[in-house]
Amino acid sequence: MTQQANKAEWVPIVAPILTELLGKVRFNEQGLISAIAQDDSRNVLMLAWMNREALAETLTTGRVCYYSRSRKTLWRKGESSGQVQHLLAATLDCDSDCLLLTVRQKGVACHTGRHSCFYNALTPTGLIELTEPDITPDALYGVKTSS
Amino acid sequence: MTQQANKAEWVPIVAPILTELLGKVRFNEQGLISAIAQDDSRNVLMLAWMNREALAETLTTGRVCYYSRSRKTLWRKGESSGQVQHLLAATLDCDSDCLLLTVRQKGVACHTGRHSCFYNALTPTGLIELTEPDITPDALYGVKTSS
Repeated sequence: MTQQANKAEWVPIVAPILTELLGKVRFNEQGLISAIAQDDSRNVLMLAWMNREALAETLTTGRVCYYSRSRKTLWRKGESSGQVQHLLAATLDCDSDCLLLTVRQKGVACHTGRHSCFYNALTPTGLIELTEPDITPDALYGVKTSS
Repeated sequence: MTQQANKAEWVPIVAPILTELLGKVRFNEQGLISAIAQDDSRNVLMLAWMNREALAETLTTGRVCYYSRSRKTLWRKGESSGQVQHLLAATLDCDSDCLLLTVRQKGVACHTGRHSCFYNALTPTGLIELTEPDITPDALYGVKTSS
């Protein structure tokens, strides 16, 4: 088995080891690294990006924090929806430019209300939605009313 | 369950559905999409990239073909090492900019000779290698002799 999730709580990684680990990560020319989140049932939930600050916060707190490329800011997963990710394990790949996070997902990972973001199957008859939302986006983020 | 791999052989996707599906993919400004490979035991093996041509070939043939960003060419996985990936299922994520491939991996996915590329655990005591190679890179790619 190559990925055994530690089911216990995350043990915070702090300086000087934190600095040592961050130094081993190959961030790209935008200062980012891709991060795959997989839950403790081994469903792949999503792919997102982290900058150095997001990764440091994630490893220190055990709560997954990404970097939003569209909003250009830290994205503390679940901050507005409550659907947080608790970190169980983190591994870096062979060329140090991708992370695999094992997480305990509270609720759903996808903004559409689905457990996983990967639900559109490419099939010989076209794109097929494999899953229905567990919860509506309105319930996740609150219904916006016109001002 | 959000990801149920079809254990049968891949059914080739051909025109006009192939064109329709490729049109739904959001390739980035370099014309690429990230692709996560997960084996049928649900180990995450690797992350790599595909351009439109690589994805079309993958969906048509059922043999996974990536795009090598360093070599700037199609990268038919296993072409030199024999460690091919047979496609079992492919799903697109909610914002259409990442693919999850379920594959039957022949041998090992990683160029280091490990089953998965994700073997460096980030821990409070530093980076720890979780797995040893199953096979040496020399055995995978052939020993290079000086000319």
